[in-house]
Amino acid sequence: MVDIFVNSLKTGLETLKKDGAVIGISGGIDSAVTLKLLEQCLPKDKILPMILPERDSDPKRICMAKKICRDYDFKKISITSILRKLGIYHDFKNYFFIPRGIKEKYSRERFRQSGKDIYLRFLNSKLDPDLLNALGYLRIKNRIRMAIIYHHAEIRNYAVVGTINKTEYLLGFFVPFGDGVADIMPLLNLYKTDVYEIARELEVPEEIINQAPSPDLIPGLSDELILGMNLDISQKYLSVPRNSVLSYSRHAEVLRIKKTKQEVLVEQSFNRN
Amino acid sequence: MVDIFVNSLKTGLETLKKDGAVIGISGGIDSAVTLKLLEQCLPKDKILPMILPERDSDPKRICMAKKICRDYDFKKISITSILRKLGIYHDFKNYFFIPRGIKEKYSRERFRQSGKDIYLRFLNSKLDPDLLNALGYLRIKNRIRMAIIYHHAEIRNYAVVGTINKTEYLLGFFVPFGDGVADIMPLLNLYKTDVYEIARELEVPEEIINQAPSPDLIPGLSDELILGMNLDISQKYLSVPRNSVLSYSRHAEVLRIKKTKQEVLVEQSFNRN
Repeated sequence: MVDIFVNSLKTGLETLKKDGAVIGISGGIDSAVTLKLLEQCLPKDKILPMILPERDSDPKRICMAKKICRDYDFKKISITSILRKLGIYHDFKNYFFIPRGIKEKYSRERFRQSGKDIYLRFLNSKLDPDLLNALGYLRIKNRIRMAIIYHHAEIRNYAVVGTINKTEYLLGFFVPFGDGVADIMPLLNLYKTDVYEIARELEVPEEIINQAPSPDLIPGLSDELILGMNLDISQKYLSVPRNSVLSYSRHAEVLRIKKTKQEVLVEQSFNRN
Repeated sequence: MVDIFVNSLKTGLETLKKDGAVIGISGGIDSAVTLKLLEQCLPKDKILPMILPERDSDPKRICMAKKICRDYDFKKISITSILRKLGIYHDFKNYFFIPRGIKEKYSRERFRQSGKDIYLRFLNSKLDPDLLNALGYLRIKNRIRMAIIYHHAEIRNYAVVGTINKTEYLLGFFVPFGDGVADIMPLLNLYKTDVYEIARELEVPEEIINQAPSPDLIPGLSDELILGMNLDISQKYLSVPRNSVLSYSRHAEVLRIKKTKQEVLVEQSFNRN
């Protein structure tokens, strides 16, 4: 299975006429797998992994990210000071003195208090002010990351390699113009369950595979909590056939989001009635 | 003519189910016209114009931008300190002590020394390191602007209204995931020459109409200098018929870029041989 993806990624990179690749490493499974695939397409000195943590990032994931990049000449740039300058953090003072466990509990509580079917309401553009604030708060983080990653790619004539998988993509579970854009997305035809499979084949460390999937944008808010269901289960709601092209250009990719969100909406509503 | 655009914009805003609109104001003609159109669709207190200048922005244009927003409760946020934190400005020291005229002359000279057909080489992914640096330098500016504008839109449930016109769009003359993205783009079916026409109808001040078009990202680099030709002339190279939908969603819009760049490439090459 891995060979198909490596060949497809190779062809994609050649088509883009770029001299190398930049990839954002979060410490999660998707970026770990994507880097392993890239490794088989390009020499190590043509791959620039970037770790872009901020105040809310899980220290365990940052640690994981560094482990993944160990063999590379990677860049680690904290975006905390940029987000602070942008006024994103103004809600919380003395944040650094609060233990992470308490922050996680606090966010989870507030999220749960916001009612049911939050993700469905988000897809429907029906969020209340509190959740709109949270949405703005988390999205700008990945957009700043995108701007930095593209900057480093453009000055080197490198391609930006994205890490969105098919489950995330079909659910609209990414930040538009944030992690939702890249020059090439090697995992876009793999459901999250397939990513686990390929991760084992590529010998991604078990501690990375076994983490609970999370966008790591607000402490304590995992994929499962936000979506209101397990990723494996959510997969069953997605009707799109499991075939077609193996990698998409960013243009084709961005285009299909709208239709997809609606599909999910319809399916989820159907299932609940 | 204006009525058609106002009606189309109104319908578009309703479809988006948003409570208002955010728009970036540069001091140029496109954002001035777009704001005038918006004014006829939404009450003034539902429109948030944003002025996001940085170190290299033309003071005359900032002044113009403020004039355009005079009647609004607008936001002006300098992004200089953010770009400095991102390490974008590291090339130039004592920049603020150099008169603008000299900076403009310097940039123009360096740009001309980089050889002929720079825009064509850019479309072809064939820039040398100096120009790649310039590309990265100018693009991150509009991407940071995008992130800020979207943040302010998302926390209010407002739509982001873009200002790209058809000439810019077909030439690929915008920053992907920067000013190239928005929730709605009212000028996307207007060639630059049509924008001038509609600007007069909407009584945009003459001083704004009469400025030389410029992305205002690097001092002295106007549209004409970068493209290597006048915008009116470049328009003739574009074969796409002048009809179809009046406003595009961001998804449809982003999709067509790739094909379009290639079309332009082919046409421009054809014309020179």
